[in-house]
Amino acid sequence: MQQLLRVQNFGVSADGYGAGEGQSLQRPFGHADPRELLGWALATASFPGRTGPGGSRGLDDHLVRAFHHGIGAEIMGRNKFGPQRGPWRDHDWLGWWGREPPFHTPVFVLTHHLRPSFALAGTTFHFVDGDLAEVLARARAAAGGRDVRLGGGARTVRAFLDADLVDTLHVAVAPVQLGSGSRLWRSPEELDERFHHEVVPSPSGVVHHLFWRR
Amino acid sequence: MQQLLRVQNFGVSADGYGAGEGQSLQRPFGHADPRELLGWALATASFPGRTGPGGSRGLDDHLVRAFHHGIGAEIMGRNKFGPQRGPWRDHDWLGWWGREPPFHTPVFVLTHHLRPSFALAGTTFHFVDGDLAEVLARARAAAGGRDVRLGGGARTVRAFLDADLVDTLHVAVAPVQLGSGSRLWRSPEELDERFHHEVVPSPSGVVHHLFWRR
Repeated sequence: MQQLLRVQNFGVSADGYGAGEGQSLQRPFGHADPRELLGWALATASFPGRTGPGGSRGLDDHLVRAFHHGIGAEIMGRNKFGPQRGPWRDHDWLGWWGREPPFHTPVFVLTHHLRPSFALAGTTFHFVDGDLAEVLARARAAAGGRDVRLGGGARTVRAFLDADLVDTLHVAVAPVQLGSGSRLWRSPEELDERFHHEVVPSPSGVVHHLFWRR
Repeated sequence: MQQLLRVQNFGVSADGYGAGEGQSLQRPFGHADPRELLGWALATASFPGRTGPGGSRGLDDHLVRAFHHGIGAEIMGRNKFGPQRGPWRDHDWLGWWGREPPFHTPVFVLTHHLRPSFALAGTTFHFVDGDLAEVLARARAAAGGRDVRLGGGARTVRAFLDADLVDTLHVAVAPVQLGSGSRLWRSPEELDERFHHEVVPSPSGVVHHLFWRR
């Protein structure tokens, strides 16, 4: 069975940015407000770690709920893992997610600065360098026959797109302008030569773009 | 954790019928053409039992793929199980699906004519009579903490709706008129007093209606 490389529930601004500038420990999305960029997902009943009752169970929830479905591994860029740049100053940083990362699979973090793998509540983080196709091959081997999720950030997704390694892509475009930051695209139509492309406006105000290979 | 009763990927005509009149062994949907009623699902990459390559991976596929996700049991009306009416003439009929039913969970078939349970490739069919709330309680107990799918047909879904037992409902309205048959509703708006209701047109031409309890 074919193992797809899938981007899911990736949020960008109307002008194509997945995060703002100036990422820091206090501001994982830089100058972008994650409530504006990802509010559509936070409002759903299925958002991981949701504590309050309620939450929508419409279109947005269907997409959020699919986050784990059929996924056996994730690949992410280093900035999705943490705010540090350059050589690791310590190995105490275990990612943004606290003691219970929401992945529950092997996760491959792209970085030129290797460090030992570690496991946390069912998620194992590996730190990998090298060619994107090789990293994808490692993730596929670790995924137990299931698909691989490409988790972001925007520049990481773009690099895999430019290497023509992405099979399906779901991007949620929020009605907010960021002006600068980590850019996925200038326009979703950039991908139309290589991908089928459905545009599905959600009643929540976000617009879902669904791509799959031609 | 709450165990929902969910209707998923239930196809009806524009005038609200889930099947036509005159169900028979040769015509499981009576005078309705299943390619018109369910063509949106058959065209997706994830449709169960799909043999050919290709298939769409857009919105319709996301919904089809969710069919099994988080489901631990199904409840169905007798007509979804087979074309026989009245007392069972034999127990050789094992459902429409051949040797590999697509459910892979316990399935509770509503009928006044009981027969022994049987298992087939990971699906176990039970034949149950009685109050809908009691049947739902049995299905919940068998679902291992997961949700229960209400599989149809239209009159069965309507009976559970009228008993106020349904938590979420996804109905795909196909652009075809049937005129008569097994009716779910006169109009989707009938449910708006009790449910949130999102209307999501798909590029395929079908319109998805997503409901969840207010």
